[in-house]
Amino acid sequence: MSGGDIDIQQAGAGTLDDTLDDRAGPRPEPAAGGAGLRKEDLHASVSSPVLDTMNFLNEITLRYPEAISFAPGRPYDGFFDNEQIFTHIRRFLDHLAAEGSTPQDVRTAVFQYGPTAGQIRDVLADSLRVDEDIDVPPESIVVTVGAQEGMLLVLRALMGGPDDVLLVSSPCYVGITGAARLLDVTLTAVEERENGISCDDVEAAILAEHARGRRPRAFYVVPDHSNPSGTTMDLKTRHALLDLAARHDFLVLEDTPYRLVSPGTPLPTLKSLDRERRVVHLGSFSKTLFPGARVGFVIADQRVVDADGRGGLLADEIAKIKSMVTVNTSSLSQAAVAGALLASDGRLSELNTDAAAYYGRAMSSVLAGLDRTIPADRRAALGVRWNRPTGGFFLRLEVPFRADNAALTRSAQDFGVIWTPMSYFYPQGGGEHAIRLSTSYLTTAEIEEGTARLARFIAAESAAAR
Amino acid sequence: MSGGDIDIQQAGAGTLDDTLDDRAGPRPEPAAGGAGLRKEDLHASVSSPVLDTMNFLNEITLRYPEAISFAPGRPYDGFFDNEQIFTHIRRFLDHLAAEGSTPQDVRTAVFQYGPTAGQIRDVLADSLRVDEDIDVPPESIVVTVGAQEGMLLVLRALMGGPDDVLLVSSPCYVGITGAARLLDVTLTAVEERENGISCDDVEAAILAEHARGRRPRAFYVVPDHSNPSGTTMDLKTRHALLDLAARHDFLVLEDTPYRLVSPGTPLPTLKSLDRERRVVHLGSFSKTLFPGARVGFVIADQRVVDADGRGGLLADEIAKIKSMVTVNTSSLSQAAVAGALLASDGRLSELNTDAAAYYGRAMSSVLAGLDRTIPADRRAALGVRWNRPTGGFFLRLEVPFRADNAALTRSAQDFGVIWTPMSYFYPQGGGEHAIRLSTSYLTTAEIEEGTARLARFIAAESAAAR
Repeated sequence: MSGGDIDIQQAGAGTLDDTLDDRAGPRPEPAAGGAGLRKEDLHASVSSPVLDTMNFLNEITLRYPEAISFAPGRPYDGFFDNEQIFTHIRRFLDHLAAEGSTPQDVRTAVFQYGPTAGQIRDVLADSLRVDEDIDVPPESIVVTVGAQEGMLLVLRALMGGPDDVLLVSSPCYVGITGAARLLDVTLTAVEERENGISCDDVEAAILAEHARGRRPRAFYVVPDHSNPSGTTMDLKTRHALLDLAARHDFLVLEDTPYRLVSPGTPLPTLKSLDRERRVVHLGSFSKTLFPGARVGFVIADQRVVDADGRGGLLADEIAKIKSMVTVNTSSLSQAAVAGALLASDGRLSELNTDAAAYYGRAMSSVLAGLDRTIPADRRAALGVRWNRPTGGFFLRLEVPFRADNAALTRSAQDFGVIWTPMSYFYPQGGGEHAIRLSTSYLTTAEIEEGTARLARFIAAESAAAR
Repeated sequence: MSGGDIDIQQAGAGTLDDTLDDRAGPRPEPAAGGAGLRKEDLHASVSSPVLDTMNFLNEITLRYPEAISFAPGRPYDGFFDNEQIFTHIRRFLDHLAAEGSTPQDVRTAVFQYGPTAGQIRDVLADSLRVDEDIDVPPESIVVTVGAQEGMLLVLRALMGGPDDVLLVSSPCYVGITGAARLLDVTLTAVEERENGISCDDVEAAILAEHARGRRPRAFYVVPDHSNPSGTTMDLKTRHALLDLAARHDFLVLEDTPYRLVSPGTPLPTLKSLDRERRVVHLGSFSKTLFPGARVGFVIADQRVVDADGRGGLLADEIAKIKSMVTVNTSSLSQAAVAGALLASDGRLSELNTDAAAYYGRAMSSVLAGLDRTIPADRRAALGVRWNRPTGGFFLRLEVPFRADNAALTRSAQDFGVIWTPMSYFYPQGGGEHAIRLSTSYLTTAEIEEGTARLARFIAAESAAAR
């Protein structure tokens, strides 16, 4: 998934209430012997700085409701219609019946515990074949509660001991770093260059880990229209990364939420190029169908061999872990997703033609707005530049001042525009002078006004920084 | 939840295919440099003996399809009708509109990312008040992907360091031990006595942990009709346990899946008796509504205070962790559950009157079958006895022989009857001479024939053991 999902969904969550509550001042300590808990006694993941910063962002959003926000990475929902839910679920149930299920079987599929690995794996496998040229058996797929659960399951399966390390491209989607923190997984950031990740940098990181006696097990990356930086990995780098993975015996965790909601024909997925089963592919329907379903999947066709030489698939091991996390994915959500796929003969790309065009126009509008309000001849003097993603929901804007929470507060309060500090996405520091702009959720009018406000904010901050 | 859920749901999962596959003999090792993974390099939770034994049970079930199985803990599904799903979801959407949501708000509730802690917390709080005399603010509730996710989230929140220990009543639902393994949480079993857990034993375990320099943070228990043993905690013990928790500063994790699907008026929940916020309550709709929804919840109204004296609720911290696990719970599942609750004015107990009577009759039938086929005058000589749960899905049967996988295989093959070795549920050994019988899923005729087969099997094994 990836996707600024976490920023947004917390906007209505307890974490926000908590933050707002705090502003009322400290509460009395619980009486001695009472059931008050000390936060420092809880697991460190709840004190992660990322969560605090996300809370801060949510707080700013609530405090300045009139501000135009380039923060949320949620999909545009003008395409949605409630009746679709009922149609999709019915279609899947009809499909089961047409495939030979008895009425009792269909009822069981809706109401009972389902297979841990999911009951729509054949539908997903068909869709992946026609849409993504990924040809894997259904048995190598595990349906998950969004790609977020997929990340957690894969990390838990692969990270067996304290010497195991996860490499991540950095800046990085907060979902993967959050899952790593939750499992106390050691994480090493490999910093992106201007155009995305360089295999030389990944290799250097791998060798450095080996030199420290640690074992880099996997490298997480969003090859297409990355969250947060908007970069896309070129074809040559895709091949080189697979070669590198084979040479140094690690897996690539490929996260792919933005591929089919971007204009144009995407490059091949790493998984479709994968000849040695080096890629574990994370799939999401949050952008291509709808986030509320909470349906994603993992493709894990790697062989796992035990000490007695008996083998299975990594997907089997991931399903075991899922049995201890969520047992199985909601049957209603699986039915809704499968029904939508069946309605389009598995062609999510065609189903998303309008959405992709919409998001493409939104990205173009933001770029045009920036071009117009910060003309080319002023950019160098200001020390401002931005990249030009060909799709996805995000772009990266570099500024000559510290784009921190204090700057964000000034931006919201004095200029009526909100954005995300890029530093939120650097698990090991960095990005202090960059901003993430989300383009997915605003109207054209909001984008026009928002980029103008942003230009005024940047001009003011740049002047102050000089 | 609790509930033999895990036994069952894996029946269609990759894990089973894996096991069946193994019987075809070892597979070739992957070529050197290929992407084969060694199982010993994966996290230890995938090699948990519980998973292997569950796989074995699934395999036996598939291998002997004609056998009558007292193994699955799934609810009876004769009450279900597919159209209910649509009715429930529509009812919740109508409720949102009636409460003042705009059409756009309703659409957002269905399709978008939702609040991490759930969007039906007010409906749940109302239901808990009328049904369980539990009066908590909606803000103290986190909606989870089944109670299983609740267990994982609560353990992750509470277990901050290597010295933190989870106590569990033993024998114990495998979901909690699985979640503990996944998080590398140290677990100490407190063995049940004939009638359930004794506070003296819990206190002794607490003191022993303190003496070892460890910190017992919580005690997990299913007070009503426990899975697997069927015991129910009496009222005096409930009060004593709360006193003990206050005295030794630990939390009680109360898991409650079978309360409202059992005949008669249940005893008060620990949470309703909890005056010092010592109880974290785990709720499940898997038995009272339907497992496929995968909706449960956690009540965590404990205060959490940080180093600066700022406070919030444990529910807030749990929601933060959920944002790294599943982001939020399926909007469709939440809508279906809330719709069902609204349809019955929150009175799950009344909604389940017929179901509770059904399960009560099933339990009575199994007990009557045992009484008939193993008459009272033969039990002592055979060395066989069983308890007489007043509700729930399970009972405990003690036998004079090792009730292990080999015995289970003989039982399925030669006598056509399947059960669960009680030893599966002992996280630190024990239960080798006991059997768990599930009563929830068989017809009266199957129960009658099944208990007769069981009696023949027990007679034969007992004779052989002498």
